[in-house]
Amino acid sequence: MTAAASPNTRIEPASHATSGSEVLIGGCPVSDLARQFGTPLYVLDQASLTGMARAYQAMLDTYPGESLVLFAAKAHCNMGLCQLMQQLDCGLDLVSGGEVHTARQAGFNLANTLFNGNNKSDDELAYALAHGVGLISVDNATELEQLARVAMANGRHATILLRVAPGIECHTHDYIKTGHLDSKFGFDLSQIDAALKTISTANSAGNSPVLTLAGLHAHIGSQIFELQPYQDLATTMLAEYERIRRQHGLVMTHIDLGGGLGIKYTEADDPPSVETLAGTLVKALVDACDAVQYPYPKLLIEPGRSMVATAGTTLYEIGSFKHIPQLDKTYVAVNGGMGDNIRVALYQAQYTARVATRINEPHTKPVALVGRYCESGDILFDRLLVPETIAPGDLLIVYGTGAYNASMASNYNRVPRPATVLVKDGQAQVLVKRETWDDMTRLDLPLRPV
Amino acid sequence: MTAAASPNTRIEPASHATSGSEVLIGGCPVSDLARQFGTPLYVLDQASLTGMARAYQAMLDTYPGESLVLFAAKAHCNMGLCQLMQQLDCGLDLVSGGEVHTARQAGFNLANTLFNGNNKSDDELAYALAHGVGLISVDNATELEQLARVAMANGRHATILLRVAPGIECHTHDYIKTGHLDSKFGFDLSQIDAALKTISTANSAGNSPVLTLAGLHAHIGSQIFELQPYQDLATTMLAEYERIRRQHGLVMTHIDLGGGLGIKYTEADDPPSVETLAGTLVKALVDACDAVQYPYPKLLIEPGRSMVATAGTTLYEIGSFKHIPQLDKTYVAVNGGMGDNIRVALYQAQYTARVATRINEPHTKPVALVGRYCESGDILFDRLLVPETIAPGDLLIVYGTGAYNASMASNYNRVPRPATVLVKDGQAQVLVKRETWDDMTRLDLPLRPV
Repeated sequence: MTAAASPNTRIEPASHATSGSEVLIGGCPVSDLARQFGTPLYVLDQASLTGMARAYQAMLDTYPGESLVLFAAKAHCNMGLCQLMQQLDCGLDLVSGGEVHTARQAGFNLANTLFNGNNKSDDELAYALAHGVGLISVDNATELEQLARVAMANGRHATILLRVAPGIECHTHDYIKTGHLDSKFGFDLSQIDAALKTISTANSAGNSPVLTLAGLHAHIGSQIFELQPYQDLATTMLAEYERIRRQHGLVMTHIDLGGGLGIKYTEADDPPSVETLAGTLVKALVDACDAVQYPYPKLLIEPGRSMVATAGTTLYEIGSFKHIPQLDKTYVAVNGGMGDNIRVALYQAQYTARVATRINEPHTKPVALVGRYCESGDILFDRLLVPETIAPGDLLIVYGTGAYNASMASNYNRVPRPATVLVKDGQAQVLVKRETWDDMTRLDLPLRPV
Repeated sequence: MTAAASPNTRIEPASHATSGSEVLIGGCPVSDLARQFGTPLYVLDQASLTGMARAYQAMLDTYPGESLVLFAAKAHCNMGLCQLMQQLDCGLDLVSGGEVHTARQAGFNLANTLFNGNNKSDDELAYALAHGVGLISVDNATELEQLARVAMANGRHATILLRVAPGIECHTHDYIKTGHLDSKFGFDLSQIDAALKTISTANSAGNSPVLTLAGLHAHIGSQIFELQPYQDLATTMLAEYERIRRQHGLVMTHIDLGGGLGIKYTEADDPPSVETLAGTLVKALVDACDAVQYPYPKLLIEPGRSMVATAGTTLYEIGSFKHIPQLDKTYVAVNGGMGDNIRVALYQAQYTARVATRINEPHTKPVALVGRYCESGDILFDRLLVPETIAPGDLLIVYGTGAYNASMASNYNRVPRPATVLVKDGQAQVLVKRETWDDMTRLDLPLRPV
């Protein structure tokens, strides 16, 4: 395994290159992409996606049991990306009816998907059951009763995981911290026995069982740089498996240890590679199984951000300049901002960016790089170094935008959302078409007098 | 003028009522709205919108010159709402091609609109000029050159304001603070003379003038509770008008003093009424004009949040419950969240909410009220008091969601965005249709092999 096989440890996508003054992604010069598809533009590098999928699969190959990488579609979801994930032998972690529907429209084998989330509707559960979603992760006691009811009413059977909050806390941003005790997600471990009883009751209510418990599911956070939590997670989870086997005689067949591996947004970030994670997470699980001779459950992991963030870049066109003489400060505006990347304002997220059409010039001039949205907080970089020669029409490339950018994009200011293109070997294909001004009013109805 | 005429000082919309256990808005029981239109649902109360428009118009009636209320559409924009604003004799403050297009599709008289924003594209400016947008607020020197070029290339003339940063700072949330020196918006006052020169040069370049400077435009912030900044603003602006008259012999015909009046999100908020604002802002401007015998310029104001926030409520259905025994804490989930209201996570915004189907029961039980999005930060209320009897299927009403909720909504988790209905006199009409799962994949294209 080479370093390139774990793109999460680099800022630039795997295929990133320069030629003269310009950046190329997937062999495509950024100015060609901008001309052909317009800006702002989300660009996904297929080599990075393949590299991460292969890295995770190599990690799971070190596990003696079965395994599957479930790409967490909430990080970035569209039909083409689902299809690519299927080509890469990945499953999907889905969190809504809309995501299940996207996978289905993409022709994804839904047997290789998990339906996740803390408050699924009856309609969503019925849809997932009707179309053969492989596993449903049940988040809480209300949902367990609900799923039994919906499955019975629809004459379906559900294979489930129980989402648990294993009490492991990660040192990550408050907003994206999960898995510790005070979380909206998952059963407390003290509630598992009650859940087993609910399952047993539901299965006795009709002619045939409606719920099969395949295992437990945990997810301890996001953008995690430490390995110890993963080791603790594997150990804690297997201890619960063993307790359930001992007290209830139930041997579970699956284990979902979630995702959360960090990526390198800036030079200050030093995330572990997938190879290192393998040595910790997989080894801890194997050791824990071996210690009590537990049959290796099928190991599921749910990488989202680390699978797709580094693959993604955003291209913007530079527009207006504002200089404040008293502060000797220059604001430079691009033609996107908080509508296509809410993470800066929402999480104070830090990114790396360069002027992609002057990549060979020294980036020495500090500017405030702001968006086009009519809001003072629409600032992508408080301070970004750019070439002295930066001018309207230049292209800015922001790295690491493949996760939670397109998926959280809004039509704030009624600005159409960008297109998404996938690039490889000098070719680019549109995965998501750019919205138009007409799209902004597509669902609007005229006022009628009352 | 009664208190009801300035709905921004109340938490509930003007037509809010209760009948038995249930809340009614615009005469419509919330359970009827939920049944007919589904949830989550954005509900706009026409009486509140009318009340605020009339309050602002009454305020401007105290001004001896001409005047116009421009509703800031970025707060909430759809065709029906534009049409209602036209019926209420308001103009529109628009900040993108998509908003201009919405107004145009609505049949709005674009002469009564202002096009605003810090980085407008050539396409947007050309579109605004072609369709007769009344005023363009030019934000910076780059845009002034750009607009002259676009107008000339298209054979159009533009009547403009210059957006200025008058150095007045408001005590409001950092993200929504504008108008002080260090802002991405507007000319520094020291740059006005250079702008006048640019206008003059542009007007001499062709056969006929392309730019007419009508006045200056400032906007000092949002959710402002203090009156002093408005007084300072009027005085500072008129001083600049007088300086320009004295030094350049130019008498300007318009003045845009922006918006920013706060609303009452919670009992802790005590915003001034529009009537009080009139006594400050209008009086300060009149005094400043009179002091130097400046002809009263046409007074434009741009209320956004205060026009529409209180009119709006969001109805959610209560779903799953999670109890954490160690903390004796209950999480209650609704079927929406950060996708339809990003303001809580983004600005730590505080709202007021009640269980609208148990409105007559004491709200004494503290819960954490969370959304359905697959993210730990999707928490609408860290602590909300609800009735002890709260159960799945109950409806939650969140007040004050008419501004920056629908307009900033996303399809995070590929969850369709809610419908918007306008209610009045027991009737409800859809202004924006609910998105469907099919809408989530509407712009997705299938992967083709490379």
